[in-house]
Amino acid sequence: MKKRLLTGDRPTGKLHLGHWVGSIQNRVRFQDEYDCFFIIADLHVLTTKREKQDVLNTREHILQTVTDYLSCGIDPQKSTIFLQSAIPETAELNLIFEMFISLNRLAGLPSIKEMAKNAHIEPESVPFGLIGYPILQTADIALPKAHLVPVGKDNEAHIEVARDIIRRFNMTYGDILPLPDALLSSIPSLIGTDGQGKMSKSAGNTIMLSDDSKSVDKKVAAMYTDPNRIHANVPGTVEGNPVFIFHDAFNPLKDEVLEFKRRYREGTIGDVEVKKRLAEVINQFLDPFRERRRDIEADPGYIESVLVEGTERMREEAIKTMKDVKSAMGLSGTWTKFRKAAQEHAKNVSA
Amino acid sequence: MKKRLLTGDRPTGKLHLGHWVGSIQNRVRFQDEYDCFFIIADLHVLTTKREKQDVLNTREHILQTVTDYLSCGIDPQKSTIFLQSAIPETAELNLIFEMFISLNRLAGLPSIKEMAKNAHIEPESVPFGLIGYPILQTADIALPKAHLVPVGKDNEAHIEVARDIIRRFNMTYGDILPLPDALLSSIPSLIGTDGQGKMSKSAGNTIMLSDDSKSVDKKVAAMYTDPNRIHANVPGTVEGNPVFIFHDAFNPLKDEVLEFKRRYREGTIGDVEVKKRLAEVINQFLDPFRERRRDIEADPGYIESVLVEGTERMREEAIKTMKDVKSAMGLSGTWTKFRKAAQEHAKNVSA
Repeated sequence: MKKRLLTGDRPTGKLHLGHWVGSIQNRVRFQDEYDCFFIIADLHVLTTKREKQDVLNTREHILQTVTDYLSCGIDPQKSTIFLQSAIPETAELNLIFEMFISLNRLAGLPSIKEMAKNAHIEPESVPFGLIGYPILQTADIALPKAHLVPVGKDNEAHIEVARDIIRRFNMTYGDILPLPDALLSSIPSLIGTDGQGKMSKSAGNTIMLSDDSKSVDKKVAAMYTDPNRIHANVPGTVEGNPVFIFHDAFNPLKDEVLEFKRRYREGTIGDVEVKKRLAEVINQFLDPFRERRRDIEADPGYIESVLVEGTERMREEAIKTMKDVKSAMGLSGTWTKFRKAAQEHAKNVSA
Repeated sequence: MKKRLLTGDRPTGKLHLGHWVGSIQNRVRFQDEYDCFFIIADLHVLTTKREKQDVLNTREHILQTVTDYLSCGIDPQKSTIFLQSAIPETAELNLIFEMFISLNRLAGLPSIKEMAKNAHIEPESVPFGLIGYPILQTADIALPKAHLVPVGKDNEAHIEVARDIIRRFNMTYGDILPLPDALLSSIPSLIGTDGQGKMSKSAGNTIMLSDDSKSVDKKVAAMYTDPNRIHANVPGTVEGNPVFIFHDAFNPLKDEVLEFKRRYREGTIGDVEVKKRLAEVINQFLDPFRERRRDIEADPGYIESVLVEGTERMREEAIKTMKDVKSAMGLSGTWTKFRKAAQEHAKNVSA
């Protein structure tokens, strides 16, 4: 039996190269080693956005996320992709888990404060549900009885919360749920095309996994490089230069990259040449993604069927887990007893 | 159409005269005026008791609560008695509502601090779920779309939280849920037989609604009275004297009570006589309860069938309400679309 792994994304739309570098490439590898559950965490979106969402937009974002997964090589024959809000057991387990962690423990997490800040929520109006973010994650992890959760340094605290909750639950009700382990990876972040910080949609410095080759050409041509280099014969700086960071990340010809760096430092190669080659390299990298995307888009309803089948598989697991949980807590047994007694009563009355 | 009313109890076992005075007598009256939903709030029990419960005990407590309701004259033909944990929509709506209230708003409620103190929970270990107590109540109120919630002064703040949440939800997603009103009543509390404070099981100063007449005789005989009155001819104090508080509450012969008080103050009547009459009065008061209880207990499975039928009725309402809620939020529409597209896809593949 393979170990189970859970990870996923909030559906915020199309993914970019930063997502590939930071998480998707690992997930594609994890598929063979683990039984992977990839969650589209649409309930988590509500923790920072309770305003009415554009429904068409939400639907589109969910489908875009799944399309990106599949085009990157996540294989629905191997892995389970599912929609969080279609698993009502998530809320049931979330409510139970809320009893197993103190407010103090959660209120101190810097990650939650960071999320509130990014969502422009004032500290005094942080919603109760946002503080409960890691509890909802714990429910996501526990429902498929996941053993592993890939996390970066930023989110290590959340997996510690999950472990605390599950440990206490098991101590109280018996060994029902596996204690999840963090699968710590470096989760490298990719610099944006503007060289000013992490690639992110809000900064407008992305290359999307779904960009066509012309868009890539344009974005790379406009990419930030060494600003002091006003001519090709001025010696340039390689370190922290996005053009070289991208070459390092996506150019399979390591010697070529070394050569480019040497000549760049000497001032014997122009930015245009280095960028032209980078655009080629990124397009070659994205070509297999594009091919899969074409196949997927030629088959309307395929994406939805992947998501529905995955969600149905996850639902079965969730129902099983909640049966275990409720039976350990005495909740389901009590209700079953009442129903049986009521049925007996009905029989006797009609007899 | 009658207005809907929601109220109920955590199932902590048999009810006593204090419950009758404080809430049950009102509920019996409410039945004709309102469409009443009486919740057995077993999930709320978890907010202060996460340790493993004795399952048989829990089951017993639930049945005792329903038996007490029925023996007091709550009529399952008129009202809906239901079990909270058998309504999974409660957790779903709870999770959504958690986004509509700030932690700050809840953390300041003195009632929650009081509950934590009573449950011997240190301030730094107050569970997240206990802070969320009023949110869970709001879900209970909103699921049957209740218009009215009877509350005493102590719990007025909770209904204000419920109104805040529902108001904000409606502002965001449209006019989906009725804004509940507090049905403020004085919710008088009854002094315990020890005269030291409110009647409560933990203080061991109760007369139970299910006590037989001998137990009542004994408890009344041992009831605290004016401690300075060592002889029947010593003038006694009527004010704050439990024996007279109980006479006021349960003796229908108001002239007799006035006469007793006069003679007690004068020192011309013994405690024994006043108490003997009080025991009679309480037993007469409880006799119709006892009769109904005998009928109920002669019909095994009846209690369970009342609870199951009520819960099934409530479940239907809960499903309807969650449909409205999820459809307003775009959650159900999105999932339905995905399922339809997946079904179409399956048809095309097999064709």
